[in-house]
Formats: sequence, structure tokens, C-alpha cells
Amino acid sequence: MRYELYYWPSIQGRGEFVRLALEEAGAGYVDVARERGAAAITPMLEGKGLVRVPFAPPYLKAGKLMIGQTANILAWLAPRHGLVPKGEAARVWAHQLQLTVADWLVEAHDTHHPVGGAFYYEDQKPESARRAAHFTGARLPKFLGYFERLLAKEKGGWILGRTFSYVDLSLFQMVAGLRYAFPRAMDKLAPKHPRSAALHDRVASRPRIAAYLASPRRIPFNQHGIFRHYPELDT
Amino acid sequence: MRYELYYWPSIQGRGEFVRLALEEAGAGYVDVARERGAAAITPMLEGKGLVRVPFAPPYLKAGKLMIGQTANILAWLAPRHGLVPKGEAARVWAHQLQLTVADWLVEAHDTHHPVGGAFYYEDQKPESARRAAHFTGARLPKFLGYFERLLAKEKGGWILGRTFSYVDLSLFQMVAGLRYAFPRAMDKLAPKHPRSAALHDRVASRPRIAAYLASPRRIPFNQHGIFRHYPELDT
Repeated sequence: MRYELYYWPSIQGRGEFVRLALEEAGAGYVDVARERGAAAITPMLEGKGLVRVPFAPPYLKAGKLMIGQTANILAWLAPRHGLVPKGEAARVWAHQLQLTVADWLVEAHDTHHPVGGAFYYEDQKPESARRAAHFTGARLPKFLGYFERLLAKEKGGWILGRTFSYVDLSLFQMVAGLRYAFPRAMDKLAPKHPRSAALHDRVASRPRIAAYLASPRRIPFNQHGIFRHYPELDT
Repeated sequence: MRYELYYWPSIQGRGEFVRLALEEAGAGYVDVARERGAAAITPMLEGKGLVRVPFAPPYLKAGKLMIGQTANILAWLAPRHGLVPKGEAARVWAHQLQLTVADWLVEAHDTHHPVGGAFYYEDQKPESARRAAHFTGARLPKFLGYFERLLAKEKGGWILGRTFSYVDLSLFQMVAGLRYAFPRAMDKLAPKHPRSAALHDRVASRPRIAAYLASPRRIPFNQHGIFRHYPELDT
């Protein structure tokens, strides 16, 4: 099956968590907006021809299924591509961790958009300064510390222990994105989180992920995505 | 099996989505902090005796499984209690909708905590005023309109069409909570969303839900939960 990914063509965003899973799986997929032009996703974004319209991208078309919500897409994809153990307990736990990553991602995003997505960052700078200080001072250490402790408890270096999973790909993406957005804060926190850093490096060196990261398919981090680098927010 | 729900005893919060599902299912459960005192959940919140520690409550103990993340708990519970159709496509779609409810819930919460949970509302009133205006003016109509359109497309009055599901319980809770928090905004939007209102009423009149809502097990909405009524934010 050749999947179709519907997501914005110019940012990593939430779609990147799906791209990483598809790339690691070696799955055939079309990144529709990137390969056919941004206008190619418009009818789908408007729900044309769909009864069950997703609220927001990314969505993945898999045969007759159209799946929305990043964590939902990953939970569907992973068991079909060996990206999660088959047992129910492991799948439930992996999904739980992915949903925690999703919560973390919202908080990372809201550092530059605490008032709402309808306003430019430039129109919410004082609010952003407060929220970002709370994020780098309290929330970022809390999330990093949580995953670091799990890595310490589970022997094997992956978040599920000895078995690599899609959640490792998502944690790689979080570390990479947070280093781009908050280099100073992440640098300061680095000594406390060696396992997360090691996981990041191990993921980055997996052959398919390394090839993807070196390819033009990997959109560089930029100031339109979820992770943005505003030096004044990185204190 | 007798479930154990670990959640704060004095608010509806995220735990309420799980309580509603357990009540509708007629499942045996202990609401641990409410029945045994708030201190009874402390060891679990600290991860005592757990390798796979959840990030935050609610969690549900189901035999040997300890499940965290509200939508994950519901996705696990629902097929075991007839709260979602058995087919994969329906389950994936229901979960997708539940995750969209979860996103909506975060936005409802952040109207009174745009800077972060570490600060009192009183310490972020100007930021809240801006965020709440954006919420009631743009986001609330967008989410309500989304679910209203789905209800119009699917004949039968439930969000999955003719089949009642746990997502209907969650939509009931959203409408109830939003009416508590934003009575003026919800009143103004009501004429455009008759189907959501009808769904709310149908859920409320289901025998087990009606009995639950009339019981002391249903914690009243209050100013410590996710839905809070600040008149100055309801414009």
C-alpha cells in the first residue's frame, strides 16, 4: 500500500512525527503537498468527498481509511511496520507516552503563541516571554526528567527498554526541535539528561533515519513551525 | 474486574471523561481519592512500585494494567463495554474525535491559564482576557461547528451516526462544561448548534448517566477545575 500524507509542505510540524515513522518503516508514501504542490491538499483540508472529515492535518490516507490526529496515525501505523511490540500492554503504554509527547509539543508551541494561533508572535511578545520562562524553567525540565527517569528504569536505551519503537522517533524529534528552539536552556539541562541525548543520537544514526535527515525530504527547522528559535525566549 | 480510578477528588477535570464512561458502562470501579481520601492516590502519583509511571492523572488500574492519558484509557475501556463499535475503522475514527476533544479541552483550560499552570488566574488576567476573547470568538465556534457538521452528516443523532459511543459522553461533557464556563458565549452560539444541544440532552437522559448526574458521585463544576466561570472572560 502506498500511503498519502496530507500535511503542510513548508514545516516539520506535527506531520514530522508521521514522516519519521514512515521513513523508518521504509514505507511507500506520497507527501502530497510537497510532491504535488500545496494546492493538492486543499480539497482534502476542506473535507471534499469525505463524510468523516478530520479537524486538522496531518492526515494519512491508508487505502480506504483516512486517519487524523498524529498519535492516532502512529498507533495505527506502528503495529503494521514493526514499530511497536505486538502485545497489548506495550502498545497501550507506547500510545500513552506518545500522547504525553503530544502534550509536551503543545506546550513547546504555546511558548510563542500563548494567546492563540490567530495572532503573530510579534503581537504576543510579552505573553510569550512569561510563558516561555515558565516553560524553560519548569515544564521543560519536568518533561525531560520524566522521560530520562523512564530511560533509566528500562534497560536497553530505548523508551520501551530493549525494543525500539515509534516513540523513540518522537523523542528524537522533541530533543532535536527543542535544541533548535531553546539551545541555551537545552544546553544547561543537558548534564541531567544523558540518556535522552544518547537516544537522540542513536535514532539519528539509524540507517533509514540518517538517510532521511540528509535528504531534501527533511524540511529544515524554521520560524514557521512548532519549534521556533527566538533568542529572547531562550533564557 | 473492579477498576481503580486515580484522579483528583475535588474536580471533574480530565477524570470526568473516564467517570462518565465507567458510569454508562455500569462498570464496577473505585474512585480512589474520593472513597479513600486524597492521600490514597499519593503513592501512585509518585510512581511508587511502578516501572511504567504515568506523567499525570487520570490513570485507570485494570487488573495488572495501569493506563494513563484520558483518550488512551477510553480507547481501552470502550470496546470492552460496548461503548464503541467493534470495527477498526469506527474505533480509529472515534479515537480521532476523542483526541480532537482533548485538544479542545486544553484550549478551554488555557483561557484562564494562558501563561501556565504554575500561576494563579489572578496573576495572568490580562493574558487570559486576550486568550479567552480569541477562544470565544474563533476557537469555540470552530470546534462547535466542526462537531455540528459531523452530526448533520451522520444520520442518527450520535457522533458516529446511529451507534452511541463514548465520544458522545465526552461531547456531552464539553457542552456542559462550556455552558458553565461561558454561558453568554454558548447562549449566543446555541442557534447554530442544535444537534450538539440535542446530543447533550440525550446523553443526560440516559438512565445510568441521569442517575450519576443526580448522585453525589458527580462533583459539581467549580472554580478549581478545567471549566471555570469568570464573567469577565465570557464576552
